[in-house]
Amino acid sequence: MKAEIISVGTELILGNTLNTNAHYISQGLTENGIEVLFHTSVLDDNKLLKSVINIALDRVDLLIFTGGLGPTGDDMTKEIISETLNLPLVLNLEIEKNIENYFRKSHRTMPKNNIKQAYIPKDSKYLKNDIGTAPGVYIEYNDKIIILLPGPPQEMKTMLDNYAIPLIKQEDIIKTKTINTVGIGESQLEMELKDIIENETNVNIATYAKMGNVDIRLVNKGKSEEKVDAELDRVLKSIEDRISEYIYSHENLSIEETLFNILKEKNMKIAFCESCTGGLITSKFTKIPGVSQVLDRGIVTYSNDSKIEELSVSKSLIDKYGAVSEEVALAMAKGLLEKTNTDICLSTTGIAGPTSGRETQPIGLVYIGIASKEQAFVKKLMLSGDRETIQNRASIKAFDELRKILK
Amino acid sequence: MKAEIISVGTELILGNTLNTNAHYISQGLTENGIEVLFHTSVLDDNKLLKSVINIALDRVDLLIFTGGLGPTGDDMTKEIISETLNLPLVLNLEIEKNIENYFRKSHRTMPKNNIKQAYIPKDSKYLKNDIGTAPGVYIEYNDKIIILLPGPPQEMKTMLDNYAIPLIKQEDIIKTKTINTVGIGESQLEMELKDIIENETNVNIATYAKMGNVDIRLVNKGKSEEKVDAELDRVLKSIEDRISEYIYSHENLSIEETLFNILKEKNMKIAFCESCTGGLITSKFTKIPGVSQVLDRGIVTYSNDSKIEELSVSKSLIDKYGAVSEEVALAMAKGLLEKTNTDICLSTTGIAGPTSGRETQPIGLVYIGIASKEQAFVKKLMLSGDRETIQNRASIKAFDELRKILK
Repeated sequence: MKAEIISVGTELILGNTLNTNAHYISQGLTENGIEVLFHTSVLDDNKLLKSVINIALDRVDLLIFTGGLGPTGDDMTKEIISETLNLPLVLNLEIEKNIENYFRKSHRTMPKNNIKQAYIPKDSKYLKNDIGTAPGVYIEYNDKIIILLPGPPQEMKTMLDNYAIPLIKQEDIIKTKTINTVGIGESQLEMELKDIIENETNVNIATYAKMGNVDIRLVNKGKSEEKVDAELDRVLKSIEDRISEYIYSHENLSIEETLFNILKEKNMKIAFCESCTGGLITSKFTKIPGVSQVLDRGIVTYSNDSKIEELSVSKSLIDKYGAVSEEVALAMAKGLLEKTNTDICLSTTGIAGPTSGRETQPIGLVYIGIASKEQAFVKKLMLSGDRETIQNRASIKAFDELRKILK
Repeated sequence: MKAEIISVGTELILGNTLNTNAHYISQGLTENGIEVLFHTSVLDDNKLLKSVINIALDRVDLLIFTGGLGPTGDDMTKEIISETLNLPLVLNLEIEKNIENYFRKSHRTMPKNNIKQAYIPKDSKYLKNDIGTAPGVYIEYNDKIIILLPGPPQEMKTMLDNYAIPLIKQEDIIKTKTINTVGIGESQLEMELKDIIENETNVNIATYAKMGNVDIRLVNKGKSEEKVDAELDRVLKSIEDRISEYIYSHENLSIEETLFNILKEKNMKIAFCESCTGGLITSKFTKIPGVSQVLDRGIVTYSNDSKIEELSVSKSLIDKYGAVSEEVALAMAKGLLEKTNTDICLSTTGIAGPTSGRETQPIGLVYIGIASKEQAFVKKLMLSGDRETIQNRASIKAFDELRKILK
């Protein structure tokens, strides 16, 4: 099955919004055995959209649209498709109820124009929106499949993964394995694996740089599950043998999820005190459901006062070494351990930029302190990037340090 | 002049690489008075690329290609375009010298296959590559302009800004204004502005739903800067008059940046204590450079113990009302205010899901407590979405409550 991904939205075309949707959908389709040939983005314009639909109907089997499913007048994707395919829009009572429930839950009444979202083309199915009000649409039209997804990335992703992909999955058995690595750059990783990647004829091997770490994704397809698995395992093993020190997960977990699992298994409690990372570590960690089992608290000690009051760091220590120092990082982690009933504590202090408080200290200098009953130590990092990147890289390093010493 | 941006590359189509080039080029063209209608991305495939060229020649005046100008065999953009337009490739001695110089500078000799990059279509101009070896190409063909840019973003950007834009700049002036709103859904917003949007003939008005808030974008173009500005201001004012209570910024700021500016202006200090938002509020806030001027600390009091120890919330209060209650939210904010040397404190406690601790409490129930010397109050929210969405919506509501009472 050959596919085209069509994104509708003036904000994309004017360069206001980066088209991350097409990127995400491409990955999902590719992993499920569907060959993507084209991405098209088009202005919110009925005539242009119509021409795009006709071109796509002519050259692919599967058309996936994103955007233009909102309740307002400039959201016209569904309307133009129904017009182009000559399928009248009909009210779907189930959708209407879902939207009413959505508003009822937050004690609002449904605005009148939202009823527009409950209409779908005749003989089509709707795809549930678990997060917002705009349902998706699944249309079979002659030999083509046409799927409409909402534009907001979170709504689109949930709907694609949960409802759209299961409907279009190909018969070939497609299996993927992910190797999550940390502490090695994408190009170095590629160099380490160059011969494996080049000599491999069956399994597709690709690296994906994320913020702060790199995933390796293996995709294999075929008729026999056994053969598909065996080939994947062979490649997996050869990669593991080569770069085992950088691998932290095979289950597509984030580093913080890996850490959470270790803490849970060991029945340990943790607390964080953050300066330069500003709560990012605690915030990432609390995105994990059930984290209260292992997390006691997080303290963002941004001011010197708060370091002194919350963590019993002595004023003289800060005066002598500065807030961004090995000594203060250590004192923070130790202070937090003493104060709380936890097994391990982590601190961060550093210069995230864009300006440095002390002229002698470079932007990107970050100290991570770790204290437990058994040990206390500090790790010095030099990170590059803008403020947000430095904070993010520091948080990943922090989770990884904890993971390594607990393993 | 109407334009299409065409990106050539399998890595884009498979979802390995995010298409940031189209985004950047769109911005550059829009700012220079050129109307972009389409983005197209296509696999590295000669037949598909040829069809894409023909479709684009049919529907736009300006075709901008990126990618496929490298020295290797799968870089075929220039070759396919020259074939499609029937313009033979000819060796350009100037380019050849440039490429030789490029290698000489780094004490290397030019690999043989790089000579391919010195050929350009007959009667075309080349665009200098200040960073790499692949030159760009500028072709005038019948009434159309065709520009080829390299794929690596840095090379593409430099060439676009320095050499391509000056060749195609339009006389029209295009200006945009953004109105950032919060606390009103996209559909309700559109209903409020329905007549303004429908009756406006010059300025383009569009709404864009983001995570938790909605932007209104105004775009206007014309020959006279004065007239373009005046029309924008007229529409801006009519929208402001209608929905002023929901507008928090005109400068495309986030809500937390707006709050930061207010606090800085008033020379006030703030602290946060978070339960269900798990540090997200503090983390978002500390993404702002210079935030240490207004932020004292943030405490993520995840466990009941930490609420008692850090914020002096009484155990009996938690036992009586539960940790997720109006009473505890208020006690948290008051406790933090008492403990710190700040002017205003905010607390959150709620049920972010996916499971609820108390069966009587629904997922999405969130209390926000605010305490200052003058007042203390609690706001009850019912939010919908998954765990991450609820945390995010709660954080936006929290910033907005603070913004409103400080204004």
